[in-house]
Amino acid sequence: MKARIFVTLKDGVLDPQGKAIGHALTGLGFAGVGDVRQGKLIEIDLPGAKDETSVRTQLEEMCRKLLANPVIEDFKVELASQIQSS
Amino acid sequence: MKARIFVTLKDGVLDPQGKAIGHALTGLGFAGVGDVRQGKLIEIDLPGAKDETSVRTQLEEMCRKLLANPVIEDFKVELASQIQSS
Repeated sequence: MKARIFVTLKDGVLDPQGKAIGHALTGLGFAGVGDVRQGKLIEIDLPGAKDETSVRTQLEEMCRKLLANPVIEDFKVELASQIQSS
Repeated sequence: MKARIFVTLKDGVLDPQGKAIGHALTGLGFAGVGDVRQGKLIEIDLPGAKDETSVRTQLEEMCRKLLANPVIEDFKVELASQIQSS
């Protein structure tokens, strides 16, 4: 089963990378650029996994243990079935 | 208008970060971890923008000019209306 994990900075946490991207875009002449935030997209394949509930639990555990820093980051898990619809 | 941009390495391009994450997850005892790929998630707010077609064109131009390296990266633009449905 394929899944995507989005790791983003919590609201209120300063995002220098996002700010730098925003300034660079404006400098390149793009108009109307507001807030820019950069995060991580992690695509994971769990071959052989079938049960969405246990996969979601496992992925959330991966986020808490390794993929996201709970102090400053939020995470969101999206399973393959949701990816097809988006 | 809010939008999300996903920048991912092209298939076939080696992803050492993804490999490192995969090994770390296995080392933490997570079973069944297959391929792991890490990319960038960029959330952009274009306040005042209304027309989805021109916003999409502008965002794709941003990707070609700055946000994605066309040699090794792919990008995908997702507008707010799609984010709500995912």
